[in-house]
Amino acid sequence: MTEGPYGFEEDGRRFVLTSATAMPAASTFLWNRRMLLQLNCRGFATAQFMQPEPAKYAHAPALEARTFMQPEQPYYAHHPGRFCYVKDEEDGGLFSVPHEPVRRAPEAFSFSVGLSDVAWRVRCAGIEVDMSVTLPADDVAELWTLRVRNRSGRHRRLSLYPYFPVGYMSWMHQSGRHRPDLNGIVCDSVTPYQKVEDYFRQRDFKDRTVLLYERVPDAWEANQAQFEGEGGLQAPHGIVAQARLGGGDAAYEMPTTVLQYSVALEDDEVQEYRFVFAPARDDDEVRRLRARHLSHAGFTAARDEHAAHIDDGAGCLRIETPDPWLDAFANHWLPRQVFYQGDVNRLTTDPQTRNYLQDHMGMAFLKPEVARAAFLHALSQQESSGAMPDGILLVEGAELKYINQIPHTDHCVWLPLCLRAYLDETGDDAILDAVVVDREGHAAPVAERVTRAMRWLLQARDARGLSYIAQGDWCDPMNMVGWRGRGVSGWLTLASAYALKQWAGLCERRGDSGLADEFRDGAAACNAAMDTHLWDGDWYGRGITDDGVAFGVGSDTEGRIFLNPQSWALLSGAADAERQARMLAAIDTHLVSPYGVAMYDPPYTRMREDIGRVTQKFPGTAENGAVYNHAAAFYLYSLYQVRDGDRAWRVLRAMLPTEAPTDCLQRGQLPVFVPNYYRGAWRLHPRTAGRSSQLFNTGTAAWLYRCLVEELFGLRGEGDALRVEPRLPSHWPSARALRRFRGARFDVRIERVEGLSQPRVAVDGLWQEALLIRGFQAGRTYEVQVDIPA
Amino acid sequence: MTEGPYGFEEDGRRFVLTSATAMPAASTFLWNRRMLLQLNCRGFATAQFMQPEPAKYAHAPALEARTFMQPEQPYYAHHPGRFCYVKDEEDGGLFSVPHEPVRRAPEAFSFSVGLSDVAWRVRCAGIEVDMSVTLPADDVAELWTLRVRNRSGRHRRLSLYPYFPVGYMSWMHQSGRHRPDLNGIVCDSVTPYQKVEDYFRQRDFKDRTVLLYERVPDAWEANQAQFEGEGGLQAPHGIVAQARLGGGDAAYEMPTTVLQYSVALEDDEVQEYRFVFAPARDDDEVRRLRARHLSHAGFTAARDEHAAHIDDGAGCLRIETPDPWLDAFANHWLPRQVFYQGDVNRLTTDPQTRNYLQDHMGMAFLKPEVARAAFLHALSQQESSGAMPDGILLVEGAELKYINQIPHTDHCVWLPLCLRAYLDETGDDAILDAVVVDREGHAAPVAERVTRAMRWLLQARDARGLSYIAQGDWCDPMNMVGWRGRGVSGWLTLASAYALKQWAGLCERRGDSGLADEFRDGAAACNAAMDTHLWDGDWYGRGITDDGVAFGVGSDTEGRIFLNPQSWALLSGAADAERQARMLAAIDTHLVSPYGVAMYDPPYTRMREDIGRVTQKFPGTAENGAVYNHAAAFYLYSLYQVRDGDRAWRVLRAMLPTEAPTDCLQRGQLPVFVPNYYRGAWRLHPRTAGRSSQLFNTGTAAWLYRCLVEELFGLRGEGDALRVEPRLPSHWPSARALRRFRGARFDVRIERVEGLSQPRVAVDGLWQEALLIRGFQAGRTYEVQVDIPA
Repeated sequence: MTEGPYGFEEDGRRFVLTSATAMPAASTFLWNRRMLLQLNCRGFATAQFMQPEPAKYAHAPALEARTFMQPEQPYYAHHPGRFCYVKDEEDGGLFSVPHEPVRRAPEAFSFSVGLSDVAWRVRCAGIEVDMSVTLPADDVAELWTLRVRNRSGRHRRLSLYPYFPVGYMSWMHQSGRHRPDLNGIVCDSVTPYQKVEDYFRQRDFKDRTVLLYERVPDAWEANQAQFEGEGGLQAPHGIVAQARLGGGDAAYEMPTTVLQYSVALEDDEVQEYRFVFAPARDDDEVRRLRARHLSHAGFTAARDEHAAHIDDGAGCLRIETPDPWLDAFANHWLPRQVFYQGDVNRLTTDPQTRNYLQDHMGMAFLKPEVARAAFLHALSQQESSGAMPDGILLVEGAELKYINQIPHTDHCVWLPLCLRAYLDETGDDAILDAVVVDREGHAAPVAERVTRAMRWLLQARDARGLSYIAQGDWCDPMNMVGWRGRGVSGWLTLASAYALKQWAGLCERRGDSGLADEFRDGAAACNAAMDTHLWDGDWYGRGITDDGVAFGVGSDTEGRIFLNPQSWALLSGAADAERQARMLAAIDTHLVSPYGVAMYDPPYTRMREDIGRVTQKFPGTAENGAVYNHAAAFYLYSLYQVRDGDRAWRVLRAMLPTEAPTDCLQRGQLPVFVPNYYRGAWRLHPRTAGRSSQLFNTGTAAWLYRCLVEELFGLRGEGDALRVEPRLPSHWPSARALRRFRGARFDVRIERVEGLSQPRVAVDGLWQEALLIRGFQAGRTYEVQVDIPA
Repeated sequence: MTEGPYGFEEDGRRFVLTSATAMPAASTFLWNRRMLLQLNCRGFATAQFMQPEPAKYAHAPALEARTFMQPEQPYYAHHPGRFCYVKDEEDGGLFSVPHEPVRRAPEAFSFSVGLSDVAWRVRCAGIEVDMSVTLPADDVAELWTLRVRNRSGRHRRLSLYPYFPVGYMSWMHQSGRHRPDLNGIVCDSVTPYQKVEDYFRQRDFKDRTVLLYERVPDAWEANQAQFEGEGGLQAPHGIVAQARLGGGDAAYEMPTTVLQYSVALEDDEVQEYRFVFAPARDDDEVRRLRARHLSHAGFTAARDEHAAHIDDGAGCLRIETPDPWLDAFANHWLPRQVFYQGDVNRLTTDPQTRNYLQDHMGMAFLKPEVARAAFLHALSQQESSGAMPDGILLVEGAELKYINQIPHTDHCVWLPLCLRAYLDETGDDAILDAVVVDREGHAAPVAERVTRAMRWLLQARDARGLSYIAQGDWCDPMNMVGWRGRGVSGWLTLASAYALKQWAGLCERRGDSGLADEFRDGAAACNAAMDTHLWDGDWYGRGITDDGVAFGVGSDTEGRIFLNPQSWALLSGAADAERQARMLAAIDTHLVSPYGVAMYDPPYTRMREDIGRVTQKFPGTAENGAVYNHAAAFYLYSLYQVRDGDRAWRVLRAMLPTEAPTDCLQRGQLPVFVPNYYRGAWRLHPRTAGRSSQLFNTGTAAWLYRCLVEELFGLRGEGDALRVEPRLPSHWPSARALRRFRGARFDVRIERVEGLSQPRVAVDGLWQEALLIRGFQAGRTYEVQVDIPA
């Protein structure tokens, strides 16, 4: 699969890109319980760990704004990265691995992304260099291996210069020096404080950055400016003009970590080096890091532990389909992305409530006990009004930061939706009776708390029955629709209806038909209000402003149609069959693009002050009219609910690049995660349409996984049974799925059978009466045959 | 004066550096009423303007932290700057002006810093390029002139590429495109907001950056990545691999502004180009900028207006001494720095109260009406307790930011000190009766407000009579000494004594001997408390912590002696002659370094939690044991008060680099401003000792100017007279000073006369009875002869 510029290896467990220039922004990421490392195919890197807010230890050379991850952030020459220069000591020839900073065209290049490691192989001038990194499972440290091999057919004398820039660490304090006693270069800094209370918060920070070596280098340099000299990063003075690195230190100067190894290699001879690059608090911690990791045995143990950590979050589904790229993605990469988000909560201390709930909806399929704890934790922060807060505080001392100080009105919606997935997957109805104590000390069972949340949604509506939007709702581009207290959200009205319906169903199942009726009536009232006030003839409008102006309607010249109200009308049951048909046709006409379904159209070209950030944010930006995969995932989910499997398939498949020779290149996206968006406005900006945001934090992952498991393969829990109702695209003759479910394993073979009118299911050779499998036992494996009409 | 690597020209009004590599961090600055532009000799630049907080329009490629100016901030390849590439169309040879990004070694280079312009001349491959910039007096815009001349003796074909990088403008929105209708490249962005209230604060921001041209270019590029390609900034693809720039746009990509001019030059032929680089709000503003400035006449008018603006802040002193570097500095550059600080208040909206008062003390010598208004404005924010706030709010809607939220206890001290200078310079005693209404609506005259401030100082002391430090005082490195409410500051106790004495003198002059006695007694009590509790045998200690531990005393191994308590003990009169001698000897022994007098010694190597930021901030940093010029200026001032003119001269002269061939190079400092510090710890870090912070915001400027005017040349106001009492260093045989004073001009010639026992003063040939000139008239010029003992 790697004859082209990229492809999968190892049964989809490895993706390989063979050019650093074809997709210069291509990136991937690694994480463990403590840290996150994003790597770009050219060697750029961004690393974060928690103390307790996200912290950096290799810094941009400019003063960094400590902010959330930035989609499509540009790289530049001095961006942090991990590099190795190689100098030919005979002719002075220079190259660098992976590609930056020298950018010499290689004889061969590969960027190889594993589930728990990333590796490069670069050959220049007959010298082959392998660089690879993995993380220990439970330490903040990068474990790097460098292997150099002489492929030139003659004796060679080289110098290797591992170069891990540290950057501008702090305006208060930064220094660097070689510490032979610690076998490394140590860069120190102090997090600045001025208020006394900040000192106590920060004094135990890991303010030090170290590069530790196993083999003692022949020379080193700790001063960035002395290393670069006039040559700059492309031809550093310390390398080009000196036989030996200068051995300098940095005293309130920008420190760096560069080592030099003199190597003489016979033909085909190999030398291997190991390094640890990490933050640390003090000498003792440096010694511990070194003792624990810096050896062949330590690296092997760490690699195995980290791989085990990833395996621990393996998905509940393994598929074999006519689409091997989808297989690789669904079997390994999508569950890995879902696991990342649920495992470390996107490296935040105050995740937005809707993100936290949806991420743990994803975890329900991987590690339901983690999801359970998260739902209980979220509910422990419910307000006495029944409202959910804008963010969930995860650690002692965390604070709701900027975005979570802005009132959004949708958070309650996600409770029944996410709980429903959890209950279907686990059958753990007992969670509904679990008692949760809130921050005011009041105890109430989960079911009662969800009921309160639903009642909060019901009362947060205007006289017309439409839901107030305040300063925003989900897909939060709009914050001026209703800040004066009157504006309403069409989407949220429909989402409330859907949430109320979901909860009514669960109340019914618990035997409380009084509550069920209350919420069914509420849902019907929401739907009716939408029909009365926001049905626009061919689709539902997005909302009505404080001044009573409907928007996202046919009379708008920009932002005329929004995807979300249509998807959620399908879910909430607001639309009858005729309206559904009109909506689907309108989506096809206005929103379907070559790279997926856009969130709205036409793109905005100017600010509309009565709507707000949607226009403030979007004109001329990557997000303007973008294919927001999270919104597309709900459209996908809603299409399955109305049993439009072929349309759903087209939406699903557009969420990740295909094997087609240019698709990855155009999107700039490796198929190892689903990004939060692809650029849209494809009629307006054809040059940039389809480009990936490169951002892997997105609720898309959980919903896409749910769609694959419950809908495409139709293997969804229902009470104590497993419902089997696949919705394969009509061009697939067959597919196979291994489904892990409540401790049992189901080996499911799906075949299209000519002349069949209804699907049928056999378990271990016995045809079942319904499309349900009951009475299975944990620990056992069942052979399941599913015949579906051709 | 320019035969060496640097020197003054035009009678000191111009400084020239002739190497870009000898002092790579050398920088200077320009400002007008609206903006500040800092320029580095290699072409790096930082520009700020107000709206109302400091804003940028050329950005670092990383996400920028919007923070105060950073001393010694490192530059890097993609740092914002102003450049011009030059390509030889015959042989493809490439260089850039001023030096970055190509860094080709030039045949000739000069970096030429004028009072109201900055210019480079660079010759490479026989082509001479002049680049220069000035600012209009009252617009946010840079006016750039580019002049290219063929010095090669043969016909040449070139391409010129003015390249003004714009950088990563915003994560919300950024784009760029050529706008032939506006004759420029326009880069748009939107300041991100999420809270609705931020939108209204920001919607009129100048979020656009434009490069406007007078002559239509042959090609252009607005997309940074397309410009650079694989070649990077040293060999951009758009220049090296293309005959013509690609004409691209940026759509949520990093924009840039690059133009291309094809030029054919006969030998000695010259071509000239003009550009405006500026932020703007919209097309209309762009058109206005263009119409107003972009022509030969517009540039000439702007240059003249800007020069007039600088002249408007000219100093009150012109000197001729045996030290021509001092003459240049004192006549042009120091008053310019003083003017900058008072003119635009360091580009802040909430200057620290002590900075605001001292900056306007400086303005008293240049534009006393501005100083008067500032003193009244500061007092209008006095608290009802008599305390002064930590910062002074300058504009509607401004807020006290981080540093000004930390309680410091010294702000009242500066009122009588700065008022005293103002009164001496202006004779405007009426200001003391001016009524100031505070924010609670209470009216009180200035004198009463100062009296309240003095009483606040008196009560903010402990039972021993020592002044509480709270979370900090002046030279604010210490914030943990007294945060629990008990710790005291030795320096502040002495400073209070000095302030009280100053105010007592002014009360006496106003005939209020009751108040005068009250404050003289208070000052004596402060001095007595110091003698009892913090005299350490050879010097005064710095303070006593919350836990009762004295520090800055002989038993400390680090931070054993601090300069400030000694200087202020000389000022407050705490020390008798014997103690004075001990203190001066201790300073000579411990604090005097080759680059000036250090603020403390020995440098700290670890944190002392009972002192705080002094140790947190300083170990291993540039500021650790630094020569803090602001502290040195007070030592200087105090030495004049005890009439130690020769010791004072050594302190003064160390504040700026001398003409000695390596002094500028070692310090990395042009003698065009006095930086806030030079690195110290010279025994510990000899490699970096003496280096300049490059930071020109410092209270040093005002005090140094006061010392020059009032002390070195001894031309100080006293009531309605001018006191004439120069304290020239003993090795100067003579000096001359032109002094502007209350509208009159005094042409003062000072001579050492053998055998003279007392100084004497003649005005227009008439010997005066005292060293005072009385009865002079505004508008007249007086010849003053001063004879001093040899």
